[in-house]
Amino acid sequence: MTTPDPSLLSLNTATVRAQWTMPEIIDGCVRHGIGRIAPWRDQVAKAGLAETARRIEDAGIVLSGYCRGGMFPAPDAAGIKAARDDNRRAVDEAAALASPCLVLVVGALPKDPAGHVLSRDLAGARAMVRDGIAELLDYARPAGMPLAIEPLHPMYAADRACVNTLGQANDLCDELGPGVGVIVDVYHVWWDPALEREIARAGRADAGGGRSRLMGFHLCDWLVPTTDLLLDRGMMGDGVIDLPLIRSWMERAGYRGPHEVEIFSAGNWWQRDPDEVLATCKSRHATVC
Amino acid sequence: MTTPDPSLLSLNTATVRAQWTMPEIIDGCVRHGIGRIAPWRDQVAKAGLAETARRIEDAGIVLSGYCRGGMFPAPDAAGIKAARDDNRRAVDEAAALASPCLVLVVGALPKDPAGHVLSRDLAGARAMVRDGIAELLDYARPAGMPLAIEPLHPMYAADRACVNTLGQANDLCDELGPGVGVIVDVYHVWWDPALEREIARAGRADAGGGRSRLMGFHLCDWLVPTTDLLLDRGMMGDGVIDLPLIRSWMERAGYRGPHEVEIFSAGNWWQRDPDEVLATCKSRHATVC
Repeated sequence: MTTPDPSLLSLNTATVRAQWTMPEIIDGCVRHGIGRIAPWRDQVAKAGLAETARRIEDAGIVLSGYCRGGMFPAPDAAGIKAARDDNRRAVDEAAALASPCLVLVVGALPKDPAGHVLSRDLAGARAMVRDGIAELLDYARPAGMPLAIEPLHPMYAADRACVNTLGQANDLCDELGPGVGVIVDVYHVWWDPALEREIARAGRADAGGGRSRLMGFHLCDWLVPTTDLLLDRGMMGDGVIDLPLIRSWMERAGYRGPHEVEIFSAGNWWQRDPDEVLATCKSRHATVC
Repeated sequence: MTTPDPSLLSLNTATVRAQWTMPEIIDGCVRHGIGRIAPWRDQVAKAGLAETARRIEDAGIVLSGYCRGGMFPAPDAAGIKAARDDNRRAVDEAAALASPCLVLVVGALPKDPAGHVLSRDLAGARAMVRDGIAELLDYARPAGMPLAIEPLHPMYAADRACVNTLGQANDLCDELGPGVGVIVDVYHVWWDPALEREIARAGRADAGGGRSRLMGFHLCDWLVPTTDLLLDRGMMGDGVIDLPLIRSWMERAGYRGPHEVEIFSAGNWWQRDPDEVLATCKSRHATVC
C-alpha cells in the first residue's frame, strides 16, 4: 500500500468549528500547509461569502467541496419550496467559492419547525429526496455545479438522511442522470459488505462532462465505544476503520481527488487547541490513512 | 391492514431484565396473559435451567426464541474454541427449554479479554462468523435446533455483529445450507431500502425440514433523538418505524410466527413498574403494530 499524497489532504471546517472562525481556519490551513478546505455554509455566512471567497483565493487554497445542500423532505408545499430556494442559494455560494461540487445531506422523515418527526413514511421521504434533487439539477446543471449525494450512516435514516448506502446513492444517480455524483465518507459506509463493489460501480459511472461519479472521499474513524450518535467521531487511527483498504478501493476505482478530514467531536477534538488538531490531521493522514 | 393476533405477542425477557428475575417474569406473563417468552441465557442461568424449564412448562408458556448464541470471532484458537464450546451449551439449553431456535448475535471484530478491539479486518471477522456458524451447524443439526442469524444495525458492526443487513444474512444462509434462518428485528433493519425484497427472499427460502427461513420477528421502535447506541430503544408507537408496514411484508412472505417485544431502555422502560411495561406491550401490540 502506498502512502497517501500529502497534497490531497483537505480540512472540512466542521473539524475545528468549535474553536475557530472561518478566517482563523483559513489562516490555520496556510500555517499548516493544508491546501484544501471544505467550508460549511453557516461558518461562511458568519464571515461573509465574498470576504471568505477572497481570503481563500488569497491563501492559495482550493475547495474539496461545500457543505451542504439537501434536507429536501418537508411536510407541506411551503416547506418543499423553502428547501428548493435554500438549495439554489447553496448552489450559488458553491459557485462563488469555486467548489468542485455541492455536497448533499438529503434529509429524512418530514419534521415540523420544532424538529419533531411528522411521518413514518420512509419510502415517501425517499421519493421527496429524488424529486428534490431532480428539481435542483435543473438549476445546478446550467450553473455547472455538480451535486454530490452523501449517503449517511443508517443511524441517521430518521432525522438526517434517508440515503443510507452507497448502493442506494448509485441507484439514485442512475435514475437522475448527469450532474450528480456521490461522496464516500468512511464513517457512514465502512460497515457495508457491498462497499468495495459500489465504489467500483461509482468509479465506472460518468457524472457528465467526463467527470467521475466519485466526487469526494471523507476521512475520520469509528470509535469503540461510540458515546454519541452525532458528535463522537474519531481521529483517523483512533478507531476501527481500515482506512488504507478503503482508500485502495477508491484509487482502484480511479479516484485521485482530495482526502477530506471531517470530525465532529464535542468531547475530544473540539476541546483541543485547533493547531494541535490540524497537526494531528496531517500526521495521521500521512501515517494511518 | 388487519390488527395483529394478540396470541402472537411474546416477551423478550430483556424488556424487564432490570426489574424482575426469571421466575418473576414468567409469573408476570401469566398474569398478563402473554403466552410466549424469549429468555436470555444469563437470566436463565441465575434461576437455574431445569427450574426455569419446569416453571415455563407449568405456566403453559412457549418460547419464541432463546437469546443468544454467537460471538464467533476471537483473536486466537483458544478464543475460537471457547466460543464453540459455549455455543454448543447454548444449543443444549435451547433444546432443554424447547425453543424453536437459537438466536445468533454473531459477533464482530476480535477483542481482547478486556473488550478492546484488536483488528480492523472486517472481512476476516465475517469469515470467522461464517466458519463458526458452519461448525455449530454440525452440532445443532443433529440436535434438531435451528440457528437464527439476527442481522444487527450497522452501528454495531465493530463490536456486536458484523452481519448488518438482512441481505447479508440471506447470503450467509444460502452459503450455509439447511438448519439456519434469520430473525427480523425492526430496530436493526427498518432503514434498509432492500428490506421488503429481502424479507420476501427469506420467506421463499427453505431452512430445511419444511421450515421457513423467517424464524422470528422482533418489535420495538426507533426514537428520535436516540440518546444511547445500545440502551435507548423505544416502545412500539413512540418512534418512527412503520410497524404495520413491516408486519405486512412479513405476513406476505408467509410468516405466521410470534411478535417478540425486545426493548433495552435504561432510562425509561427499565425504570418503570414492570407490570406497567407488560400492560403497555400488550396494548401497543394491539393498537400500533
